[in-house]
Amino acid sequence: MQRTVTRILKEPRLTDPILIEGLPGMGFVGKLAADHLIETLRPEKLAEILSPHFPHHVLVEEKGVLRPMRNEIYHARIGERDILIWTGDTQPVTTEGHYEVVECVLDLAEKFGVKTIYSLGGYATGKYIEGMPKVLGIGKSGLIEELRKKGIQIEAAGGPVVGAAGLIIGLGQFRGMSGLCILSETHGILIDHRAAQAVLETLAGILGTKLDLTNLEEKAKKTEEAIARLRREMEAREMRSRVREEEESWYIG
Amino acid sequence: MQRTVTRILKEPRLTDPILIEGLPGMGFVGKLAADHLIETLRPEKLAEILSPHFPHHVLVEEKGVLRPMRNEIYHARIGERDILIWTGDTQPVTTEGHYEVVECVLDLAEKFGVKTIYSLGGYATGKYIEGMPKVLGIGKSGLIEELRKKGIQIEAAGGPVVGAAGLIIGLGQFRGMSGLCILSETHGILIDHRAAQAVLETLAGILGTKLDLTNLEEKAKKTEEAIARLRREMEAREMRSRVREEEESWYIG
Amino acid sequence: MQRTVTRILKEPRLTDPILIEGLPGMGFVGKLAADHLIETLRPEKLAEILSPHFPHHVLVEEKGVLRPMRNEIYHARIGERDILIWTGDTQPVTTEGHYEVVECVLDLAEKFGVKTIYSLGGYATGKYIEGMPKVLGIGKSGLIEELRKKGIQIEAAGGPVVGAAGLIIGLGQFRGMSGLCILSETHGILIDHRAAQAVLETLAGILGTKLDLTNLEEKAKKTEEAIARLRREMEAREMRSRVREEEESWYIG
Amino acid sequence: MQRTVTRILKEPRLTDPILIEGLPGMGFVGKLAADHLIETLRPEKLAEILSPHFPHHVLVEEKGVLRPMRNEIYHARIGERDILIWTGDTQPVTTEGHYEVVECVLDLAEKFGVKTIYSLGGYATGKYIEGMPKVLGIGKSGLIEELRKKGIQIEAAGGPVVGAAGLIIGLGQFRGMSGLCILSETHGILIDHRAAQAVLETLAGILGTKLDLTNLEEKAKKTEEAIARLRREMEAREMRSRVREEEESWYIG
Repeated sequence: MQRTVTRILKEPRLTDPILIEGLPGMGFVGKLAADHLIETLRPEKLAEILSPHFPHHVLVEEKGVLRPMRNEIYHARIGERDILIWTGDTQPVTTEGHYEVVECVLDLAEKFGVKTIYSLGGYATGKYIEGMPKVLGIGKSGLIEELRKKGIQIEAAGGPVVGAAGLIIGLGQFRGMSGLCILSETHGILIDHRAAQAVLETLAGILGTKLDLTNLEEKAKKTEEAIARLRREMEAREMRSRVREEEESWYIG
Repeated sequence: MQRTVTRILKEPRLTDPILIEGLPGMGFVGKLAADHLIETLRPEKLAEILSPHFPHHVLVEEKGVLRPMRNEIYHARIGERDILIWTGDTQPVTTEGHYEVVECVLDLAEKFGVKTIYSLGGYATGKYIEGMPKVLGIGKSGLIEELRKKGIQIEAAGGPVVGAAGLIIGLGQFRGMSGLCILSETHGILIDHRAAQAVLETLAGILGTKLDLTNLEEKAKKTEEAIARLRREMEAREMRSRVREEEESWYIG
Repeated sequence: MQRTVTRILKEPRLTDPILIEGLPGMGFVGKLAADHLIETLRPEKLAEILSPHFPHHVLVEEKGVLRPMRNEIYHARIGERDILIWTGDTQPVTTEGHYEVVECVLDLAEKFGVKTIYSLGGYATGKYIEGMPKVLGIGKSGLIEELRKKGIQIEAAGGPVVGAAGLIIGLGQFRGMSGLCILSETHGILIDHRAAQAVLETLAGILGTKLDLTNLEEKAKKTEEAIARLRREMEAREMRSRVREEEESWYIG
Repeated sequence: MQRTVTRILKEPRLTDPILIEGLPGMGFVGKLAADHLIETLRPEKLAEILSPHFPHHVLVEEKGVLRPMRNEIYHARIGERDILIWTGDTQPVTTEGHYEVVECVLDLAEKFGVKTIYSLGGYATGKYIEGMPKVLGIGKSGLIEELRKKGIQIEAAGGPVVGAAGLIIGLGQFRGMSGLCILSETHGILIDHRAAQAVLETLAGILGTKLDLTNLEEKAKKTEEAIARLRREMEAREMRSRVREEEESWYIG
């Protein structure tokens, strides 16, 4: 394998499909969001992508069962609308690999007639936020303003966007595809279901539809409870040690 | 040389051959096992593989004699069965090189009609184990259970498998080849003949044959004796220093 | 995208055009100079260059608007003379990428009939220089002497020249293009408008024309005032602390 | 430039030519030897090699004059014998680049009918040796013994040989070219003219000819005198400091 290879498994005729990207990255937000779509929409797999720019591992899916690292393209429907979902185990490990894989996906997107791309991901802030995080967007000039006028909760993002989420939108422009990065603020080191929920809510708003996010909501709650518990324990421990210090100073005093 | 090059030396007609991989890696297990097969089965070399992804060294085989780094494919027979052995001086140094060399080997395997691949290697535990180490396997779903029912001593492995041993099985699947990584637990920093013996015993069990492992057994024993001697010396030294400490405390007391 | 891609937007017929290079590098001198030419000459964009050897980011031009990293070729006129300006967001990130992008630019330059190339950049000295910095040049044998005889303020440079500014001249020679690196001395860690002004003055001298450098002059003055202010503050602080030390020694004494 | 490019300047008809390699490496031995051959034999340049795997610098040959990094092939005669000399500014910076450039040189060697290759270099010992260093050789089986029987001062070398000197011989074997690495022991961090002299004397012995090595001999002597001077100064300084210590201990005593 000299180059990235796309193995097409099915070629349904699609009407004006939308491409949604969600790969592992900051806070795993894009991957969690894509996984949720796959879990709830039960899509059909159209293609697998193998690349010499993926890590030279194989994954062990369950004990004793292996498979190479890959990216995948699924086909689902949200209402009447055809959706392609690009997800996978990994992003490429080299700069050149990023460009190569994105172009392979764009070839496929072009083949199926994609005109619009939404990429989902996290925007690291290094801070833990309680409640629903802010969602930021980057796309072509004027797009964010337009969405906000329609009542979509999204703010214009600054800073460069590293990796697939930015590159698929940036290079898609040369194929006449318009696109938007939908990025949720996230801590960066926590697996962030709440942020995945946030980007999917924004996506649903843009598509003018509803998505069942119950699962993500539950997982996010469990994480938040775990974090809250951890915090209470830490505070209690701190409290105890402060009490002890006071007692000791009382004895000493 | 822009790409990996396969130099085919012989093209015998083979009946349903099996490919066995053993390259340098964890505990040198795969390489030791492949070397043992070559030493005992006295196979014929079918092909050499050169690659710009191998280190840019040449090896000095004996003093004053040099050759470039290479991989090799041998042909042997175990009973009536045709066997291809893939071994060599090195694994590739880049991610992309791993994919490229594995594909070259798969091209060759396809040409000779290979349907089944066994890759041999070590699974690092960081612990020194006395006696026969556990053998772990990874392959397609259900394979490990099937083997265990037949009485093969193998357990399902977890974790990712890095390098050629995993990749040849993972990418072989796309060519309709079924395969199994046979990995022996090994310390990781010791050259482990015992582990090589273990993977070959498991391989023999799977193939329903016997392999003469006397040489490996002897080398393993010598290593174990050397390690036991080292341990006794270290214990004796520790004992002496403890005795001395007690004597000193007695004088002081 | 396996390779660097040139997207040609316009193909005007040019008469004996000159190529001027100014990319980000030492002190940002080349980029500042190219940006100034683009700002004042209001050229037309002829081509965009995308490369898998550019960083795998996308840039956010203004909040909420993104585009991939790129290089650009512009067409302007200085008097009657046709000028091509090569600038962009970045230089390639790999050694091989440097050669690839330079060759793409040379292909384009050849197509438009370029015979002469001037590359603009900084020459790091690690020292802050007040007033106009020295301009150094490197090209083919005898060129610097010839220019100096014509009264151009330029000295022969030593040392290797890393990156696009050197490579475009070096590799252009094989296409029969003569060229000159015009490098201004610069600190190396300061964004240096004064150095950009210096290289453009030398370029204007060589072209026998005038360039409006008012903007650069103003920006350079502002930077110098900021640096002078910083210096006065640091001196005042030092003075105060010396006074205090003396007073303290007086009390103690 | 995607790939290494060979620019052939002249194509004389040669009779059974020998290829001699000398590139920058350990102790600069190969390069010094090749430079000496070029200086004394006054050969004609046949080809230049440019490569995207060379550093992305340009060199400044003399102040104000630049050129890209390159390798070169020269044609000379030693007596009646046709000689090709491969030298240059640099070895490639990547593993893959090493293989690519060596294959380009072998293509050229094949074109000119080369059957024999000698590569010249240093073999780092980390020790400074007075007088003539030992010369080591690596080639095909039996070659070193054969040369020693003929009275050539050469010993069989061990250890891997990194870079062009080894690779040209190793990969040349696949083109039916026999070869020998001629390596002189060298410190490793000193520019070693004496070692260059040693490898050329051995080469002359093998070719059954004489080479004028006066220049190298003189440069080697100057280096040795400089080192001897340095050593005497260091010993004198040490002596003085020991005397002082004794005097001080006398006063104190």
